[in-house]
Amino acid sequence: MISEKMKPLVNNNSAIRAMFEEGKRLASIYGAENVYDFSLGNPNVPAPEAVKQAIIDVLNEEESTFVHGYMSNAGYEDVRQAVAESLNQRFGTKFHMGNIIMTVGAASGMNIILKTILNPGDQVMAFAPYFVEYGNYVRNYDGELVVVSPNTETFQPNLKEFAEKIGPKTRAVIINSPNNPTGVVYSEETLEKIGEILRAKSEEIGHAIVLISDEPYRELAYDGVFVPYPTKYYDNTIVGYSYSKSLSLPGERIGYVVIPDEVEDSQAVTAAATIANRVLGSVNAPSLMQRVIKRCLNEQVNLEAYDRNRNLLYNSLTEYGFESAKPEGAFYLFVKSPLADEKEFCNICKKHNVLVVPGTSFACPGYVRIAYCVSYEQIERSLPAFQAIAKECGL
Amino acid sequence: MISEKMKPLVNNNSAIRAMFEEGKRLASIYGAENVYDFSLGNPNVPAPEAVKQAIIDVLNEEESTFVHGYMSNAGYEDVRQAVAESLNQRFGTKFHMGNIIMTVGAASGMNIILKTILNPGDQVMAFAPYFVEYGNYVRNYDGELVVVSPNTETFQPNLKEFAEKIGPKTRAVIINSPNNPTGVVYSEETLEKIGEILRAKSEEIGHAIVLISDEPYRELAYDGVFVPYPTKYYDNTIVGYSYSKSLSLPGERIGYVVIPDEVEDSQAVTAAATIANRVLGSVNAPSLMQRVIKRCLNEQVNLEAYDRNRNLLYNSLTEYGFESAKPEGAFYLFVKSPLADEKEFCNICKKHNVLVVPGTSFACPGYVRIAYCVSYEQIERSLPAFQAIAKECGL
Repeated sequence: MISEKMKPLVNNNSAIRAMFEEGKRLASIYGAENVYDFSLGNPNVPAPEAVKQAIIDVLNEEESTFVHGYMSNAGYEDVRQAVAESLNQRFGTKFHMGNIIMTVGAASGMNIILKTILNPGDQVMAFAPYFVEYGNYVRNYDGELVVVSPNTETFQPNLKEFAEKIGPKTRAVIINSPNNPTGVVYSEETLEKIGEILRAKSEEIGHAIVLISDEPYRELAYDGVFVPYPTKYYDNTIVGYSYSKSLSLPGERIGYVVIPDEVEDSQAVTAAATIANRVLGSVNAPSLMQRVIKRCLNEQVNLEAYDRNRNLLYNSLTEYGFESAKPEGAFYLFVKSPLADEKEFCNICKKHNVLVVPGTSFACPGYVRIAYCVSYEQIERSLPAFQAIAKECGL
Repeated sequence: MISEKMKPLVNNNSAIRAMFEEGKRLASIYGAENVYDFSLGNPNVPAPEAVKQAIIDVLNEEESTFVHGYMSNAGYEDVRQAVAESLNQRFGTKFHMGNIIMTVGAASGMNIILKTILNPGDQVMAFAPYFVEYGNYVRNYDGELVVVSPNTETFQPNLKEFAEKIGPKTRAVIINSPNNPTGVVYSEETLEKIGEILRAKSEEIGHAIVLISDEPYRELAYDGVFVPYPTKYYDNTIVGYSYSKSLSLPGERIGYVVIPDEVEDSQAVTAAATIANRVLGSVNAPSLMQRVIKRCLNEQVNLEAYDRNRNLLYNSLTEYGFESAKPEGAFYLFVKSPLADEKEFCNICKKHNVLVVPGTSFACPGYVRIAYCVSYEQIERSLPAFQAIAKECGL
């Protein structure tokens, strides 16, 4: 009954999601407080109180048939305009309503963009380690994901290999900063260099290469690190954004894509992406949440909570002998496995009721991802387990 | 920049959506009260007051990180179980949580099912007139839509032609009752016959044909007409449902699919459909609305309002000389065009600020769809325009 394309997906289901299900299973046996689930990027910091108030205000102040009704497939005009103006204010861009399509989260935004631009056999590049779903999104449209190998020194993108691997079939590149799973933030210099390479290579291969910036973690940056806005460094840049992390609303599926005027055939691309939003079945981003977003553009989750988690976990784990780059953004620690096979390491962790995701899931074996978007108390309680794991691994 | 598959979609965008945009344009010129927009199935009857109360109760009674957080890709277990039990109570079925996947509306549900079962070149059948998006959904997965021609006498499905057109490439059939655009409800006898044909033909061609029942209008049925539950008549039946119409929440994108245990490889199909939900970018159905649905399973919009609209519009239009079958369900009137080319008729209507959708959009030229999910007052105000249109068309 299952299509050929879906079979490998069923046989090799997401390790992250499998771990999430495993966590729920273990919690039902040992009690939730004795299971240390660091598998999923599911924010523990609650949505700002303003979100709740905005929902109630929308329900009280706006018409039910408007709030819950259909609107243009790209979203409510006033919401799109407000999003554009908010970006302009924060990043000095010049977006308008016509550049914004509200989407069912960033995952749907990525799908819409890829459906819009990919022909079968087209190549899309990603820098390892990368969010494993990119491969699935690209294959949805019969594209091929080409992976640039990781630079495990700094986890900044390997630009030499990147330039070498671009060829006539290259249609797009996906970047993700602050990065899942490493927490690395791409510097202005990195974006400038990526822009240079893409301009030269687009010219060389005779068609524009689209830079797709997947940035649900934009606002989760620590120590005042600068997160440059990517549309400024290369014209053919499309941004996919989500409020999943910045407002702790991952289940609500609310985000947007930005298709700037500078993108080649910008209007046609926007029209096609809007239609893709419809025919892939989203139709439009959830309406009530669109109305809420308009009222919460200046809200943010409690970043300090993540920052405390980051410091406690990073300091403790390095003290126990684990190796990791200190993340500058997002809410992940990407830790070197003390065993050659990091899946074996994950199994040892699981024995101690600690759930982490193998780096293989991010095309970067030898590492594991630890999501610290959990309670501070969970991290505190888990430390003896991490210590025991370190000992068991000979650290 | 646009992919080959998207080009025809951009060049030939949805006539329904184009009409919706045209309505907004005309309203800005003539004033909303002087434009009679019958183009879109966008409910004018508000969501039940209980929906608003349920949203507020969920926000007050449940944890923010739970309400707005990730859950299993198939949806919250308790919501799925409640949906299953509600169906069992109403239709005498035996569903459980494992048969239900919460989806981003029915449109997303259809996409998920088709992605799960279609290989390139597979055929999916639909009975004209049918919701035009079916063709786009099927082509998303490189399938081919095979259309059974309309029976314009009764608008019941043409079962003789249906049986004849089934062949070795047939993978699925989509039905939609109460029907968009005709308002026709399929009888128990019709479903029994479809089941018989599908059992015989599945045997003949050597693989199961899946019956996909798209039923966002299930609860919108008038005069006590019986709307049979399709899983009872054929084992390989998958249902796609949406709360868009039954609770007037089309913008919220909340619905579910039912994959009964009787479906061949049921567990694998459910697993694959859950993964399809994730990789197509929905990830999960909007979380707050899932929580709300659990509290509103017995709620319904004011059906009497639609019934009044139906009677006023049907009685008036037939009085003016238009021909139409009286709809038994949904909120559409499918009216015979008095001119051979119904697009010309639509243009005459537009001259009178009346917006209706050409039947060509439903693979049934010579007819137009009039969506009466509008205010009673709009229908009243539009009647002189319909009278003038009748006169101009020589009725």
